[in-house]
Parts: sequence; C-alpha cells; structure tokens
Amino acid sequence: MYLIVVGAGDIGTPLIDLATAGGNEVAVIERDEERADRAARQYDCLVINDDATSKETLRDAGAERADALISTTDRDAANIMVCLLAQELSIPNIVSVVHNPEHMSVFEQIGVNTMQNPQSLIAEYLYRAVSRPSVVDFMHIGEEAEVFEITVGANAEIAGKTIQEADAEGLLGDDTLIVAIERSGEERPITPRGNTRIAADDLLTIYSGDGVTPEITDVFGHTEDDG
Amino acid sequence: MYLIVVGAGDIGTPLIDLATAGGNEVAVIERDEERADRAARQYDCLVINDDATSKETLRDAGAERADALISTTDRDAANIMVCLLAQELSIPNIVSVVHNPEHMSVFEQIGVNTMQNPQSLIAEYLYRAVSRPSVVDFMHIGEEAEVFEITVGANAEIAGKTIQEADAEGLLGDDTLIVAIERSGEERPITPRGNTRIAADDLLTIYSGDGVTPEITDVFGHTEDDG
Amino acid sequence: MYLIVVGAGDIGTPLIDLATAGGNEVAVIERDEERADRAARQYDCLVINDDATSKETLRDAGAERADALISTTDRDAANIMVCLLAQELSIPNIVSVVHNPEHMSVFEQIGVNTMQNPQSLIAEYLYRAVSRPSVVDFMHIGEEAEVFEITVGANAEIAGKTIQEADAEGLLGDDTLIVAIERSGEERPITPRGNTRIAADDLLTIYSGDGVTPEITDVFGHTEDDG
Amino acid sequence: MYLIVVGAGDIGTPLIDLATAGGNEVAVIERDEERADRAARQYDCLVINDDATSKETLRDAGAERADALISTTDRDAANIMVCLLAQELSIPNIVSVVHNPEHMSVFEQIGVNTMQNPQSLIAEYLYRAVSRPSVVDFMHIGEEAEVFEITVGANAEIAGKTIQEADAEGLLGDDTLIVAIERSGEERPITPRGNTRIAADDLLTIYSGDGVTPEITDVFGHTEDDG
Amino acid sequence: MYLIVVGAGDIGTPLIDLATAGGNEVAVIERDEERADRAARQYDCLVINDDATSKETLRDAGAERADALISTTDRDAANIMVCLLAQELSIPNIVSVVHNPEHMSVFEQIGVNTMQNPQSLIAEYLYRAVSRPSVVDFMHIGEEAEVFEITVGANAEIAGKTIQEADAEGLLGDDTLIVAIERSGEERPITPRGNTRIAADDLLTIYSGDGVTPEITDVFGHTEDDG
Amino acid sequence: MYLIVVGAGDIGTPLIDLATAGGNEVAVIERDEERADRAARQYDCLVINDDATSKETLRDAGAERADALISTTDRDAANIMVCLLAQELSIPNIVSVVHNPEHMSVFEQIGVNTMQNPQSLIAEYLYRAVSRPSVVDFMHIGEEAEVFEITVGANAEIAGKTIQEADAEGLLGDDTLIVAIERSGEERPITPRGNTRIAADDLLTIYSGDGVTPEITDVFGHTEDDG
Amino acid sequence: MYLIVVGAGDIGTPLIDLATAGGNEVAVIERDEERADRAARQYDCLVINDDATSKETLRDAGAERADALISTTDRDAANIMVCLLAQELSIPNIVSVVHNPEHMSVFEQIGVNTMQNPQSLIAEYLYRAVSRPSVVDFMHIGEEAEVFEITVGANAEIAGKTIQEADAEGLLGDDTLIVAIERSGEERPITPRGNTRIAADDLLTIYSGDGVTPEITDVFGHTEDDG
Amino acid sequence: MYLIVVGAGDIGTPLIDLATAGGNEVAVIERDEERADRAARQYDCLVINDDATSKETLRDAGAERADALISTTDRDAANIMVCLLAQELSIPNIVSVVHNPEHMSVFEQIGVNTMQNPQSLIAEYLYRAVSRPSVVDFMHIGEEAEVFEITVGANAEIAGKTIQEADAEGLLGDDTLIVAIERSGEERPITPRGNTRIAADDLLTIYSGDGVTPEITDVFGHTEDDG
Repeated sequence: MYLIVVGAGDIGTPLIDLATAGGNEVAVIERDEERADRAARQYDCLVINDDATSKETLRDAGAERADALISTTDRDAANIMVCLLAQELSIPNIVSVVHNPEHMSVFEQIGVNTMQNPQSLIAEYLYRAVSRPSVVDFMHIGEEAEVFEITVGANAEIAGKTIQEADAEGLLGDDTLIVAIERSGEERPITPRGNTRIAADDLLTIYSGDGVTPEITDVFGHTEDDG
Repeated sequence: MYLIVVGAGDIGTPLIDLATAGGNEVAVIERDEERADRAARQYDCLVINDDATSKETLRDAGAERADALISTTDRDAANIMVCLLAQELSIPNIVSVVHNPEHMSVFEQIGVNTMQNPQSLIAEYLYRAVSRPSVVDFMHIGEEAEVFEITVGANAEIAGKTIQEADAEGLLGDDTLIVAIERSGEERPITPRGNTRIAADDLLTIYSGDGVTPEITDVFGHTEDDG
Repeated sequence: MYLIVVGAGDIGTPLIDLATAGGNEVAVIERDEERADRAARQYDCLVINDDATSKETLRDAGAERADALISTTDRDAANIMVCLLAQELSIPNIVSVVHNPEHMSVFEQIGVNTMQNPQSLIAEYLYRAVSRPSVVDFMHIGEEAEVFEITVGANAEIAGKTIQEADAEGLLGDDTLIVAIERSGEERPITPRGNTRIAADDLLTIYSGDGVTPEITDVFGHTEDDG
Repeated sequence: MYLIVVGAGDIGTPLIDLATAGGNEVAVIERDEERADRAARQYDCLVINDDATSKETLRDAGAERADALISTTDRDAANIMVCLLAQELSIPNIVSVVHNPEHMSVFEQIGVNTMQNPQSLIAEYLYRAVSRPSVVDFMHIGEEAEVFEITVGANAEIAGKTIQEADAEGLLGDDTLIVAIERSGEERPITPRGNTRIAADDLLTIYSGDGVTPEITDVFGHTEDDG
Repeated sequence: MYLIVVGAGDIGTPLIDLATAGGNEVAVIERDEERADRAARQYDCLVINDDATSKETLRDAGAERADALISTTDRDAANIMVCLLAQELSIPNIVSVVHNPEHMSVFEQIGVNTMQNPQSLIAEYLYRAVSRPSVVDFMHIGEEAEVFEITVGANAEIAGKTIQEADAEGLLGDDTLIVAIERSGEERPITPRGNTRIAADDLLTIYSGDGVTPEITDVFGHTEDDG
Repeated sequence: MYLIVVGAGDIGTPLIDLATAGGNEVAVIERDEERADRAARQYDCLVINDDATSKETLRDAGAERADALISTTDRDAANIMVCLLAQELSIPNIVSVVHNPEHMSVFEQIGVNTMQNPQSLIAEYLYRAVSRPSVVDFMHIGEEAEVFEITVGANAEIAGKTIQEADAEGLLGDDTLIVAIERSGEERPITPRGNTRIAADDLLTIYSGDGVTPEITDVFGHTEDDG
Repeated sequence: MYLIVVGAGDIGTPLIDLATAGGNEVAVIERDEERADRAARQYDCLVINDDATSKETLRDAGAERADALISTTDRDAANIMVCLLAQELSIPNIVSVVHNPEHMSVFEQIGVNTMQNPQSLIAEYLYRAVSRPSVVDFMHIGEEAEVFEITVGANAEIAGKTIQEADAEGLLGDDTLIVAIERSGEERPITPRGNTRIAADDLLTIYSGDGVTPEITDVFGHTEDDG
Repeated sequence: MYLIVVGAGDIGTPLIDLATAGGNEVAVIERDEERADRAARQYDCLVINDDATSKETLRDAGAERADALISTTDRDAANIMVCLLAQELSIPNIVSVVHNPEHMSVFEQIGVNTMQNPQSLIAEYLYRAVSRPSVVDFMHIGEEAEVFEITVGANAEIAGKTIQEADAEGLLGDDTLIVAIERSGEERPITPRGNTRIAADDLLTIYSGDGVTPEITDVFGHTEDDG
C-alpha cells in the first residue's frame, strides 16, 4: 500500500512507525522543519517539508498513486482542506483525525472517514483507569454491551470454579460470555470450554450485554462503586 | 468519587465531561485562563486557574480528600512532577497520559498508572482504517489474538448460513468465535447460538486467536491485502 | 435579508458597510477583539467576538434564520470550515473569498459560491493601470471580449465625428460597439445613436470582441505598447 | 516594459504572474525571505530580498530605467514611502494599492495612481453574490448605470423571443441594451441584431442606465428582493 | 499655540514637557497604552491613545484648530503618513523627525519641515566630545564657520591678556571673534570690550570663520589632534 | 585616533560615518547581526558582532589601544556597564548617550562624559521649529543668552540699514550683537563692521543676552507669539 | 532594619522570606506583575510593581530611610544601575548578586558589596556532591584550607578511637583539627576533648590546612579519587 | 570521573569550568544552540545540542559509562525527568538543582541527591551581608552552631590579647573556639595556640555553638543589631 501521512507530530509519528513496519511505502508531509528532519532520520520513508494544503505538495508526495492519505495535524481546518484536496486528486481512501467533536459531521458530510474522536477515547480510558481500575481494556458493542478484559482477584467468587459450575451457580448472567482466558505460562489465550477452570490471576476477556457493571466486577473479586 | 483532573485541553475536556456526567465530584486545575474559564462555564466542577506543579494548588483542589488524580497536560515532565507531588499528598489513585513512549517506563518506575500510549492507540486506529477498512473496532487480547467488529458483506460466503453450517464448512477456524451479532432492527446485540443465521449487513463481534487476518476478512466478504 | 459576515478585516469591513447601508440585518463574527469592537462601534449590526469555526458561534449569530453567510477571513482553511458548518446549519446562500487560486475548485466541490479570486482581480487592475493607463475600468466577457471604459484623447481620430461617420471610415471594427457615453455636464450616460457626435474628453463604454487591443486604444488617441 | 513590483504577497504574486506572462521585464522587491525565495523560484524575474523604503534597494531593482512601479504591500504607510522615493527616482508611472479608504486622497495628493479601493471592490462582489445571485459580473458606468452579465432563466419572459419582439413588447426599457450574447457551443460572443433570438441559458451582457434593478432581473427570470 | 504631538516616546516626552511648560495647549497621540498613560499622568495635556495615521484620530486631537503638529514616532513611514494627513486637514505648521537621512528629501518634497537629522546631530556631538573635548557646545554657520564654547586653560597663551593685547599679538585670526564670556561668579555672560581681560577658566563663546581648528584650540591651551 | 563605537543603530551609524570620514581607525561592536553586517558593508571599519558588556568583546575590539569609546545603545543600563568595563580596561576617553534624564548624574558619578540629553535637544529643536519658525539654528550660552541664526524678513525694520544706523536707532539692545552675516552669493559669512548694510534675506548670526525674545524676532520682521 | 529587596524571583523570594522572618521592615521592587502579586500575598512587606532603575521607584520604596538595598535581578546591567542610583540616594549598605564573574570587579570598582559569585558557589557544591560525596558541607579558609563536615564511615580507621589515640597514631595531620562532633541523640554538637571517642556515623566538623584531600577522606572511611 | 552536565547556563557554566579543570571527562547537554556553541568553544568537553529529556540524548552523552550526572536546568520538572531517565540508565551518582523549595522532597522521594536549595543559600548570604556585614563567610553546623569568618576590628576588646588571656577574661564563651587565623603576610592560616596573640585586622575562623550572636560580633569589635 502507498500511504501519505500528513503531520509527523504526536499521532503522526507512531503512525509512520506502524505503517513502515507493516511494509508499506510511506510518504510524510510535515510543515515543521525539525519534525520533518526527525521523521526522515528515524523512518524509511519519503519526507516532504512543506505545507500540505497545496496540491503541488500532495503531488510531490505521490498523490496520484497513493492508496490512502491520513491527515493527523492538530488543526481541524487544515485537516479538512487536506482531505478535500486529496479527494480532488482522487486518493481512494482518506482518513482524518478530528479534534473538535462538533466537526465530526462536517468530515462525514464531505465523505471522509474519521478517527472516532481520539481525545474522547483517551478520556474514557483514563476515566475507566480510575473508576474501574480492574478493567484492563474494553470495547463498546452497540449502545450498552462491552467486551472487556478483567483480572480474576484472589478472593473472587469465581476463582477455582469451572465455567459450568459458574454457570450453574448463576454467577454470570445470561448475557455474559467468557470469550478467552489469558493465563501466565500459556503462550496463547485459552478458548474456554465448559470444564475449563477459572483460576485467580487469570486475565479474562468477557462479553457482557450490559457492559461493565458493579455486579460483574464483583464476581471477579473487585468491589467498585457505581461511579 | 472525588477526582482531580489536571489540564482542561483536548484530552482533559472530554474527561471532565465523562467524570461530571458520571456523578463524580470533580476539581480541575488548568494554568491557561481561557481554558479554565471555559471549563468553569461548561461543567459543574471546581476550577482552579493555577500551576499544578505546586502542592498548594493541589491542596486547593482538595488533594487531601481526593480519590484519584488524572494528569492530562501535554508535557510529560509537568505530568511527572504533578504525579510525584500527588504521591506525596497521598492521593490513592494516580493516572497520567504519557506523550513520549520512551517515558512510559519512567512513570512506571515511580508507580504511576499510565494511559497506554494514547497517540499509538490513535495511530493504530488510523492505520487500521486504511489497511483493514472493513474492521469497525478492535481490541488486542495478548500478543496476537483480537476481538473485533466486522460487517458481513453482501457477497460474503458466510451470509445466509447458520453458525452450525459455517462451522461445518470450516469457514471459521478453530480459534475463532462469533461473540455477538448487532442487527439492524434489534435493540440489543444477539447472543449467537448454533442455529442463529448470519445475514448480510450484520455487524459481528468476532474473537480470533490469530487476530484480523486476510483469511478471516475474506470469509466476511472483504478482500484486503496483507498490508 | 439576514446576512452573517465572518471576519471584520480589510474585506469584511467595507462589506458590512455595504450590507448595513443596503438595509439588511447583519451579524458579524470576528475573533479579534479590537476589530470586533471597531465594527460594533461603527455599524448598526450584531457583533460576536468569537471563533466562527464553531456551530455554537454560528447559532449565536442567528444561523437558523440567516439568508446568507459570507466568509471573508484571510485563511482558506478557516473559510472552508465555516462554509461546511454553515451548510450543516442549512444557510441557503454561502459565499467565501478564496486566497490560494488552487483552492477554488475545493470550494466549488462542496458547493460554495466563491469570489472569483480577488487578489488576481486586483492584480489585473494594477497591471492594467500601468500597461493600459487609458483604460479606466473593464470587464471580461468570455475568453477574449471585453467591455471597458476609455477617455477620448484630444487628438483622437474619432473625436468630432458622429458614430455613423466613424463606422463609415471603419474606425471601429465589426465586433466593436460604443455602449454608452459619459460626458461632462450630462447627468446620465448618453445612449449613442448614429448621429451622436463623439467629443474629446468623453468617457466611452466600449464593447470589443477582441478585448482591449492597441488598435482600439489608438483610435481613441492613446498610443500604448502591446505589453 | 520594465516593471518593479513591491511586495510578493497575496496581490503581488498574481501581479508578477500577469506581468511576466505579458512579456515584461519584472523586478520584485520583497522583504520576507520565504516569499522572496518563492517568487524567484516560480517566475522569471529579478527578486531583491530587501526593504523597499530605501533608494538603494530601488536602484538595485533598476529604478533608473523602470517604466513603472506598483506597490502592493499591506501597509499604506510603507506604500506611500515607496511611492515618494519612486517619484524622487523619476519612475514615470507609479501605482499603489491603498487599504484604508481614508488614505486614498493622500496618495492622490502626492500624484500617485491608486487602485480604486480593492477591498471595497471585493466587498461589493461578495455582496452582489448574495443580493443579486443571478448577476455573474458587473461594472459601474457613472453613478447609476451598469454593464452586467446575467443568465437567461428557463422560464424567463424573454426566452425564445427575438430582440425585436422583446423591444416591441417593451420588455427592456429605453435605457437598456443587450451588448453581447454568450451561448454554449459558440466560440465568441454573438453580436445581437434585431432578429437574434434569445434562448434560455444564454449569458447576456446588458447595459442598463438604471443599474441592476429587480425589474430587469425579473425579465430574465430571476426573482430577487430589492436588498 | 495649539500643538499636536504625535508619539510620546524618547523624543516626544521632553517635547511635551517643553510645550506644556511654554504655556501651550497640547494634544498628544500615542498608540502604546503604557506610554499614553504615563504622558497623561505627568503632563497637563489631552492624550489620545490611538493610531495617528487616521484622520479621525487627528480630528479627535483637534486638528481643525491646531496651529502646529510635530510627528516624533520612530518610523519614517508612519511620520510621513501623519504629515500628509495633517496637510489634508490644513494644519498650518507641520514638523517631523526623520530617522533615515535618505528620507529627508522625501519629506521636503511634500513640503514638511524636518528636524535636521537628529541622529546625525547627536552623532556629531558625541564625536566632538572625543575629538575636541575642549569644545563644550557648538553651532555651524554656513559651510565652515562655527560659533562654539571653549574653556580657557590654565596655561593658555591668552589667559591674563586683554582682548586688545590678544589682538595686538595676533593670537586670534582676522575671522575670529570673542562673542561672550561666561565667568564664575557673574550672573550673565560678559559682553567683551577691548579692555576686557581673559582669565583662565573663563568659558568663551567664539565665532570662527574657519570653524574649530587645532590652531584655535591651541590658543586656549588645548592641544588636540586634527582628527 | 582609535575609536570604539558601541551600537550601530540610529545614532551609532552616523557616528561611524563621521568617525571614518575623519580618518580615524574605528571598531564597532553591535549585537544585532543585521545591523553589524550593514555597518561592515558600508564603512571601512572593524565590526564585531557580539555583546559589548563583556571584557573579551571589548578586548577583541582593541580596547587596550583605543583612544576613546562611545556607547550609543538604547538602553542606559547596558551603556553604563559598557562604560564601567571600558574604565577597567583604561580607555582614556569614554562617552555615552543617556536616555533617561534621571540617569545623567549616575553617569557623571562614575566619571563618564555624557551627551547632554540628546532627546531633549531634539525636542527643543522641534519645539523651536514651531514656536520660533524664523530661527534657523540656536545655541544656549549660560542660562538665558543665546546665539541664533535668523533670516531678515522683506519688511524688517532693520533691512537696508547699516549696523551703525541700527545701533543709532536702538533697534538692537545693548546686549545684542550681530556676529556674522551669511548672504546669498558670498562664499563665506561676512564679518559685520559699522558700515555693513543689512539686506533682506540675509541670514544673521545674532548673540542676545536675553535669548530669542519676541522683541528681537520682531526687529527682523517676524511676528511671533511669546509661546 | 529597613531593607529594600529588588527582584522577587528565585533568589529574591527566599531573601524576602528570611528578611521578614528576621523582623525587618522590608520593601520589595519587582517589575513582573505576577511575581509582585505573589510576593505581596505571601509576605508581610511593601511591594512596588515597577522598574527599579528609576529614582522615583526607589524613593517610593523608601530609599531615603532604608538601611540597606539588595539587588537580585538576573541582569547584571540592571543590578549595577540600581546600585548606582541607590548610592545617589545615599542608602548606606548596598549589595548585589552578580551573574557574569567578569563583572565582579566592576561592582567592586563602584563600591558595591557583591555576593561572591552565587553560580560558582552552587557549581562548586554540585561538583563536590559528585567528586567528594562524603563531604556534607564545606567552607574555604584562605587559598587552600577548608572547614568541612564529613560522616565517619563504619569501617573508618578513626572510628572507636579517642582523639588522643588518633593523634598518637598520627591519623590526623598537624594542620588538621576536629572542630565539632554532631552525634545522633545529642541535641547540640559536642566540643571535642582529648578523651572524646569518635564513633561511626558521627558527623565531624574538620578544619584542614590542606583542604579536603583523599588522605583525609580516607581516614574517615571514604575512598575517593583525586578528581 | 566521567561526568554529564545537563544545562550550560548560569550554574552549568562554572560547573563545566570546575569539572574540566579538575581533569574529569565531561559531556554537556544543552538545548539552546547559542549556549551549546559557547560551551564547546570555551571548554574541553563533548557538547550535545539536544533535549536531555530523552534516553537517546543521554546515551549519546555517554550515559552507560558515566560516573555521575548533574542536572542544572532552570525548570524543576525538566530536572526531575532527566534524573529519572538517568536512574533508568543506571548512572550511579545523580545530583540536581531544585528551584522551588517545595519540590525538594519530591527529588528525595525518588532518590536523587539535591543541591540544598541554592537560592536559599544565596539569599542567606545576601541577608548576612547586610545584617552581619562583619561576617565574611559562614557554615551551619547542626541547628544552631556555626563556623564563620570574622575580621578583628581595630577597637576590638580581644585585639592584642593572647588566646589564653582572652579565655581567662571569659571573652569567648565555653562553646566558642578559634579554629584558624588568617593574617596579612602569612601564606597559610595560623593554627592558634594558647600563646597566639590576636591582632587587629586578623581574619578569624570561629566555631560558635550558638551561631553568630551579637555578643560574639561585639567581642570582635562589631556592633550589630539582632536583626
């Protein structure tokens, strides 16, 4: 894939890292000279030290043969101008970060894929880290359901029981499913069966139709407020 | 929960939004006057317009009774100073964003929970958006496994089949599990059973021990490179 | 008409002047405090001192009942963001200045009327002022033709002749038409007839299918290079 | 013609473009290094990266053999100083943009030709674009009269009629003249005769002694307020 | 006299001091707020904190009844704009400082009196202070002649002699005249007569047709190079 | 003479001009790179682009063999530091401009010659230019007396009279002396004798024990207020 | 004592703290508004928010009755100007910090006491902290001698011996003296006598005519390079 | 010793001076280009012009073989980040300046040696210079005791007496000890014996268990308040 990354800042840099590591051909456009130099030094990519809101710059970056462009500057207005120019140059796949949530619909209106509000995502992770510290990672499924990772506490009710036993005791609700079990010493996650026994310190991937509720974290030995 | 949020910028603002909406008591410390004013206007929280790298400011923000502090400024050095002062003031739960990945271990070294590299997370989402556009959302489970959401394409091989049929045909590998099915018209995700029939346009939550591979996206009707 | 003017700078100020003088209801959005204050002092209009790339600001300016919005800031990216937000808010008529000619098509692509490259227009006027100093004002008709104003020189061949005589002598080409005659002492321009006599110092409005050529300026007594 | 352009900004750049394209010898004086470099790269002209309010700089730009100087900086005071120095150096033709309308008379007082208030011109175009959207371009003739371009609407009363017929029906007032007709498919504007038939979608160049009035736009099928 | 002083900086401030002390009515225009405030606090004058390159500001300062305007800002271009506007407003007497000697003729060209190059004046004083340290003050008369003040050294040839004696001995050339004698203990300068005796430490005012030459300073007991 | 000039700004530049023209060896210290370059280009002198408040810089400029140093920067504190360092390095003759009159005594206290308040001098010249426009140049002698240049007006009482006649009529007071007469056509000023006749348009150098009073300017045909 | 402190920065703040705690009457002059406000809030002192290089400011701070002035700004030139003005105002005791060591003599030349190069002092402490980590504090006596504090190591040769014994064994050179012994559990330092026994962990104050040498630190159980 | 110095400012510069003079191998990290250049010019050390809050920079400076790192930047947060990174890189000896006293404990908490509040130290010296001007230098021993240097005044009670005599008269308290005597003409300090005679102008090093009290300074002929 030929990929143009606009901006080599906080977000652009790990993106260039991922994209070059993935074996893609990468062109970077960065206005700031110092950042451009650093990107050129660290990664195997073409770096153009110029303003991306110009067709000439985009063409220099290989717009006519690019498969995708990702705009990561920290100003929404600049990102939208870049995306519109990229559309004119017929880049097939265009994605942008959006900083002001209010601007999301504007990007959608012109047909640009957007990163679903990165700051809110980070904010939610931070908030979870203090309000649900037992939850290691999580993903929303629809409005309420979630898949999440949680550690089994030493005194958790479920610890030492098989999944069948846990089900039998009604520990897990109808709409709750243990998807995978990461266990110290195992190379890959264990696919849970009825007779798989849950142990303390297991890191479980759970699907819950009601999301992460105090009832559920409780089962795994974590007492948390409904904050 | 009594929560101190340091910084009312791009990340801090949606965090204050979440935290106040969650019914918590929130104190915000923001050095920039304009940002401080805006936070005070928009949210039901205490806002202190001062430098957070001072015990006095932290005490004014109620450090002695705070349950948690989240530091979200855009300078790692400032965040670490805030976290160290918060430790001195015995705030039980301290979390910080970290911008330079190299600094992650420094925060761990002093015992502060960190947001696992927010820019990398965003970068990965952006990268997925162009390299695996069929994948709507995803979460890593251990090194390789992933839970992800994917839409069933109109011409997907699996469309129109029950899960049993799909299993029988070996469409899904041993280490792949359909966790949930979001379907237009249904209020909540459907918990899949053997006789549940997959339809085009269903949004499936999949667990795959090998992560999102071209083989899997292929089953759901999406032809993507291994880029 | 209810009109929102974005920007109270060099272009915005005379626009507010015109619009208020024309009896319209005018709301102005200007980020710079000093400019906002000056506009509020000088004109009978509502002035909002805020960033226009926000729906809230546009709503405060009365977007939901505005007949038109004109964006005049000096940054194309800001103008395009304002126009897209204005479209979302269903403002019926949206116009913007565009500074970089390359960006014209981008504005058109999203369906915004644009001022046809104001700097080029000014540049052309300036250039004419030195290359065709006899031409007072001009307007392009299609690719080549022009309507223009020119003064009749004291020694012009045409001076003292009627239009019929001039035609008879072939002074004016087939594709040239005297549209109007402004003459000192007359309140309104004279509509030329066959027997109307051209006098030195008359200010003629001419249509020429070939534009302003040295041949034509020559007829009116002005010797100019073909520069 | 040997032409000195002072300033390579928004107005100066298209001016340099016009002047070099017109085969003139062009010298540019621009204080800002980046702008000076860009001008030198893009155009075939001499570029001097220095302050123009100095005779030495003007001499370096070839003042003693220049036919004209056009000052386009965005500060009136700088423009006036440049013009006065240019007068001292006996440059025959001196033109300047003026930003503050109040300063027009000052330039006139010292005998410098000025661009007739560029911002007002742009402002009027923008204003027309919302108040008379059917009018494509226009030019003032004296106080009230105007030449303007207007499209013939599909339902216009005049559509399908010859000019004679239109005249006979009194559709166009006494003081109104169809100057030229641009028609899709025709290379040059058509010179209208009595039997020329007006068609929908024709772009007419009209002379009107009363300017663009609602009565006239009405004839061409556009209903507009008298705003 | 009603006097407008533009600029309350290093030169403007002592000027305001002189002008108010002289019983004049003084209006000051100063753009910088801090300087404007200080002037208003220290002097009995009207202070307008605004940009002087605007007729409105000048009118606010009482231009229509002013007897004179003195422009003292440190930018020549601003001074010239102010002077031209002052001419338009018919202020009878207009004076300006000029910083770049090259700009002197420009001010003269538009008919503004100028301070004869203040920096050069200061520079000459400084230069004299090291090259002719015995000369206390001086004034040029035409090209070569000078009036100057010089102290009579203890060992000066002229000390102890009457003017007649000095003349008789030919100590002073034909074209040299002792204009006045300041002597410690005398309230006013002594008008020299033939029998007036010159004493060591007298401060003489001398007219010399050849200016300050080493021959002359020698007579008064100062040995100086011709540097 | 070997002369060090500190500062190549508004005052320093004409000083360098004078000093190099006078055949001196000149070293210039200027911190600003652009100014340093310009001085090096324009004058035959050594230019050091460094901070002068350092002995090393002063030594580089040749302090150990300098006859004099003149400090002309626009900050008094910097000038005083330079002068003190120059004293340490035993430069025999040290002179400085002083901007704040209050600081004059401080310079005197450390034994540095100072330019007697340059801004006040300029201010007085400017003030005279409007209050006594007939006075071309002037110099104070003690507290009240002045030597000044004045033009003889066409209708001056004194015009056409010999000095003897003027004295006889008591036109000039006891304490007033005509020092020299500059006359169009004469190469040098005329030394006035009793029978020398004063003509209109003569430029007289006058000594007046009472300074420039309205009585005196009146004699020379200028009616001025006592402002 | 009435004390004026100039500057409320890093050095000025603890100085104000000390001076107010010592019961003195303190006036502070600080140009920066924020710093001035903070000083006024935290300490019981008069704070003047103005430029100290002005006699008026110094008088407002009570210069005429001050016993001492300490200048602590971070610019040497400003400090010297303040000190000179303070001398003029006859403040009896004037002290200043000096940043550039080269400027020390300049301050001495004008008779101002100076803090003996604070940065060098800090630098030496820092350097000792890594080159002689066993030395807790130290003070130079003349060129070579030092008084210093050192901890007695667990395996130090001297540990467990009386001073007489140590002397007898020649552990301490002739020119070395144990001045005082701080011992855990003792409220005040012990004055050493011949029979006083040195214990491990004692903190000794030592006078050494040769300064801190490796031989000496060795006796106290610390092996350090001669770095 | 291999030493890394972070920061080449006011404190870093004399530190580099000391460390290179002491024969150590020194690497300097300084972000500011001008400062970095100056350090490289003046000292025999490796200079890295980069941000020190990066492991890569620290490694470039030789962190893996460094014996010590001293952080001297003027921002505590930067210093703490540098120290934490230095700990990660296992630099054995880490020292930092701390500007805000409140931050001292934070540095201690992470196990970094700190310069004991340099600003307070300087402040105390300055304060002593005005409150105890007779005390030349001093060092605290525990809470109250001090070693200090004091000059013997001409009229001091102790002048001319032997130490025995002084003891006999009870001039010095029990807890006071004369440690050393610096005397003009002697190369090294004199070690005092019972028969050593104290002379006026001797500079004594005194140990006093009660610190510097008025009683003690009195004995040496200095009358000072208890300020």
